[in-house]
Amino acid sequence: MTNVLTNTLKNRQYVFAARPEDEATAGCFGQVETVLPALKPGQILCRNLWLSVDPYLRLKMHDRESYTPPLQIGEAIPGNSVAQVVTSADPAFEAGDMVAISGGWQEYAVVRAAHAKRVDPALSRPQSWLGALGMTGFTAYGGLLSIGQPKAGETVVVSAAAGAVGSLVGQIARQLGCRVVGIAGGPEKCARVVADFGFDACVDYRAEGFAGALAAACPKGVDVYFENVGGKVAAAVMPLLNMFARIPVCGLISQYDGQSGTDPKALEEFMRWVLVRRLTLRGFIVYDLYQNHPEFTDTMAGWLRSGAIREEFNLHSGFDQVVPAFLGMLKGAGFGKTLVQIAEPV
Amino acid sequence: MTNVLTNTLKNRQYVFAARPEDEATAGCFGQVETVLPALKPGQILCRNLWLSVDPYLRLKMHDRESYTPPLQIGEAIPGNSVAQVVTSADPAFEAGDMVAISGGWQEYAVVRAAHAKRVDPALSRPQSWLGALGMTGFTAYGGLLSIGQPKAGETVVVSAAAGAVGSLVGQIARQLGCRVVGIAGGPEKCARVVADFGFDACVDYRAEGFAGALAAACPKGVDVYFENVGGKVAAAVMPLLNMFARIPVCGLISQYDGQSGTDPKALEEFMRWVLVRRLTLRGFIVYDLYQNHPEFTDTMAGWLRSGAIREEFNLHSGFDQVVPAFLGMLKGAGFGKTLVQIAEPV
Repeated sequence: MTNVLTNTLKNRQYVFAARPEDEATAGCFGQVETVLPALKPGQILCRNLWLSVDPYLRLKMHDRESYTPPLQIGEAIPGNSVAQVVTSADPAFEAGDMVAISGGWQEYAVVRAAHAKRVDPALSRPQSWLGALGMTGFTAYGGLLSIGQPKAGETVVVSAAAGAVGSLVGQIARQLGCRVVGIAGGPEKCARVVADFGFDACVDYRAEGFAGALAAACPKGVDVYFENVGGKVAAAVMPLLNMFARIPVCGLISQYDGQSGTDPKALEEFMRWVLVRRLTLRGFIVYDLYQNHPEFTDTMAGWLRSGAIREEFNLHSGFDQVVPAFLGMLKGAGFGKTLVQIAEPV
Repeated sequence: MTNVLTNTLKNRQYVFAARPEDEATAGCFGQVETVLPALKPGQILCRNLWLSVDPYLRLKMHDRESYTPPLQIGEAIPGNSVAQVVTSADPAFEAGDMVAISGGWQEYAVVRAAHAKRVDPALSRPQSWLGALGMTGFTAYGGLLSIGQPKAGETVVVSAAAGAVGSLVGQIARQLGCRVVGIAGGPEKCARVVADFGFDACVDYRAEGFAGALAAACPKGVDVYFENVGGKVAAAVMPLLNMFARIPVCGLISQYDGQSGTDPKALEEFMRWVLVRRLTLRGFIVYDLYQNHPEFTDTMAGWLRSGAIREEFNLHSGFDQVVPAFLGMLKGAGFGKTLVQIAEPV
């Protein structure tokens, strides 16, 4: 069941080269060439086709506790991928099968077949397993439904509305009958959030008068604030929150690069809102919520097929584009889910 | 059914005289003498015996939104009381009955009979309707059970542990099989929290090395933090919180008087904990939770009768002592629930 190929394939792989002082830079990453281990029974050798770059990786670059352990210098960069099976040492898969795996930022990956998910072309295109049908989509769906608990007619505000998770959160909330207001950076992005994703409104956090514009877009206040950003964006939402509002805390991307714009009273003011408005705030990551939503894949695939929910990919090409794609995504470049295609399916 | 007495009784009443700049002072309150209105059908005239002074009143003294409207200058000071019916214009009560009412800081009160709760001497002493069986007790019970959701073997940390709500929270958590760690001000109070209320430990937030002592008292981390205080006490608890910890936000007494000790990064650091530890934080007031716990009065009365839960009153005497009792309570003076007895039952 082992395969001669595994000893001859060159595998380029990104590793963690240096911890960032402040902003993450290209110098934080290095490339090495590895020799792939021989396949053991139950494993599959996969060729990565599309790599996902995700904000949570930035959290792992700090040398401090996060929801996953910090990256160590020299460690291979993890990440989800859609890949094609090259050789299989497990009866569940054969060469040519498309799979969604934790493939890492590398050309090839050896993974346990039990950890690979079959990509079903009847449900959607393969990239969707890194988008609406993958971790990104479930983060939006599970966080919004389990924690946000939106009801028809309520107002849902989504930060990073042009991003991978945010764009889906807003579209799901629209399906549930909510008024949906996005927050994004720049007039062009905001216009596209409304035009392409069907948000009721989208407010530019970089514009003068942002807080006032946000308030005007939420005439009935805010019942759910899906938090992807933190910082001054969150501060503008806070006074608009209605009694018993819910805040799924999914990410804090404005803080990841060490930026700060808060004043000394910010925490006290925030806690005061929690108390007087009886807010519920809950941090989560995607793994916390899977068990709540066995219907997820069918529901989301149905929305994709019917066109009720639209996926946008910010697609880069080539193995050398992985790091620039990641750094750009952290700065809010692009629209939708950022992917890097590093090989063609065969 | 009206009563001549109501037109002849002198009623001394506290009113809101001046909004505090910073700390609340005696000058914020004034006394007036009112003439009681004639009883309408369905009303009862009550003589207040014990007045409750509560932290939430401090929130109402700010000129900004809270969970109840701000007090207006000249407005009568509200508050719960245990009182005795003087005359009744409702068949549900007769003269001499003991009732728990929203009687306000005054000698007499005319209230709707439908809003009065009969004090049942078979359950506990009358003062308990302002303590363990009243709003105070339900705040502890409902907040801990509905939001804290402690499980046997978990660690529950309670701030303001020597206070009215905190002392009950800890004792209830002990009944549920938790390790209970209090936080209070000064070695004497801490010793009493352990000796009188049976906490497993109590840490002095005024002492050098507070954060380290708290960590040492919580070797398995913290699963529930019942928040009464905010500020530096909360900051010391935060890094100890376990994954999926719950934080019922009941009060923020350290902030009410305009104190502040936070640094500019405090909110960001806090939100980071919410995310990486997947915390749930929920602000509440007592009215939010009554419907969840119809068993409350029977359960708590049983605990009081069996001695499983002990009530302590910080009892003051005399109508002129109401304001000093309130101001002292805000500063953490006394032990247990602060009450002022202003008349004897007849």
